[in-house]
Amino acid sequence: MRRRSNRVAVESSSVVAATRWLKLTVAYDGAAYAGWQWQPTEPTVQGVLQDAWRTITQEEPRLTASGRTDAGVHAEGQVVGVETASTIEPRRLLRGLNALLPDDVVIRAVDPAPAGFHATHDSLRKTYRYQLHTGPTPPLFDRRHVWHWRAGPLDAERMGQGGACFVGRHDFVSLESVGSERSSTVRTITDLTVTTRPVDGGERIDITVTGDGFLYNMVRTIAGTLVEVGRGSKPPEWVAEVLAARNRAKAGQTAPPQGLFLVRVEYS
Amino acid sequence: MRRRSNRVAVESSSVVAATRWLKLTVAYDGAAYAGWQWQPTEPTVQGVLQDAWRTITQEEPRLTASGRTDAGVHAEGQVVGVETASTIEPRRLLRGLNALLPDDVVIRAVDPAPAGFHATHDSLRKTYRYQLHTGPTPPLFDRRHVWHWRAGPLDAERMGQGGACFVGRHDFVSLESVGSERSSTVRTITDLTVTTRPVDGGERIDITVTGDGFLYNMVRTIAGTLVEVGRGSKPPEWVAEVLAARNRAKAGQTAPPQGLFLVRVEYS
Repeated sequence: MRRRSNRVAVESSSVVAATRWLKLTVAYDGAAYAGWQWQPTEPTVQGVLQDAWRTITQEEPRLTASGRTDAGVHAEGQVVGVETASTIEPRRLLRGLNALLPDDVVIRAVDPAPAGFHATHDSLRKTYRYQLHTGPTPPLFDRRHVWHWRAGPLDAERMGQGGACFVGRHDFVSLESVGSERSSTVRTITDLTVTTRPVDGGERIDITVTGDGFLYNMVRTIAGTLVEVGRGSKPPEWVAEVLAARNRAKAGQTAPPQGLFLVRVEYS
Repeated sequence: MRRRSNRVAVESSSVVAATRWLKLTVAYDGAAYAGWQWQPTEPTVQGVLQDAWRTITQEEPRLTASGRTDAGVHAEGQVVGVETASTIEPRRLLRGLNALLPDDVVIRAVDPAPAGFHATHDSLRKTYRYQLHTGPTPPLFDRRHVWHWRAGPLDAERMGQGGACFVGRHDFVSLESVGSERSSTVRTITDLTVTTRPVDGGERIDITVTGDGFLYNMVRTIAGTLVEVGRGSKPPEWVAEVLAARNRAKAGQTAPPQGLFLVRVEYS
């Protein structure tokens, strides 16, 4: 069992405050944040959530996220677990927290979670979307939410063919940025789709990918690799070679953060 | 014929520089601007366009817009006319201006226009869209582009029924904010539609309206009036009474600027 806050532990070790676990579903526009994880001198999503939590519950928050999103990355459905002694009902917590949060962080749901819920370790599947825009000018009202690819058209059909090579259980070490601390680099991707639609005189290309877990920068490197296929500099089958090489230098570039969305995290 | 720039006039009145007229189609996110019209101490869309124009053409710009959008109002297709002695071809002007403009102002097209083209006086039809969002939280990635209506649901079908009363040739003085300088307050609305779709746990409601001209704040007051119908405080037929009253006090509130988009301006 996880240790409760120091304050409670010091007061009495025999009087144990009853706690419960909650699951917060959180959306944010990452443009203004140095990522999810709290930092002492930079604005972070965890930081603003902790501040709001402290104000509402008078409690030092212990938040676990499904994963740390990087600076500039967005979320439609980040999941955050919290163990709390607060008895405020979920609906009131939702309203109270949203009233305090800045307008680029919104809690979509507060739900009860099983005892010991840990948003990182208990997740079964995650879905990310990477948003690209091709064309002469950026999409005006979504300019902070896409990678604006200026160097000519991208063939989305070829990108989909290349993307199909990622589906399945593979060693994704070729797609992982250095600095990650995983014991294994094997992951299973269950679904990868590439869709397009015309936007603002250009084309919006969305890469949506679901898997049981993702290595550091893996989705952004998948996007950068599929762009090599889409622009015509590599054939779709090259993606299989990238995986087989087990060498980060063989893959495409790490696509910039502002096109990446954490869409959904699923639990049992 | 309009007077050319002072510089040309002073140099010689007999050597007349050949000029041509161009039509710029301009999109902008109005959030950061004090509206279209140039102001000495505030950022304006006209101001950033003039700065870019001066740099590219070395010419003092004479820009006319189809209309002045207010502070915070957006445009997908504002039309700007310019008379110029520059011989730079339209395609290069487009690229050059967009390279200099801030990322919230984008020129979509530069086209030749007939001699004497005036974007305000020559327009035949304009289309605006007013974007509403209902639901407990604002739409995260569009939060600066809607009016977030928090006071309960809005019945879009009733709003459409009420909106139908605006279609036709009417005196719209009830929908006009004071301070306008029109000789007539009669306008013809040719089309008004209300559409909805689910977004971010709420509902997005778009009011799209086309007419031969609009009085000051008229679309925002149409939106505020239809909200009274949508929330159930007035029946759809009340809209006809508002028009007949010829009294601004009878209409709904002026909806806030950030939900308003100038979509398209049509010329003969």
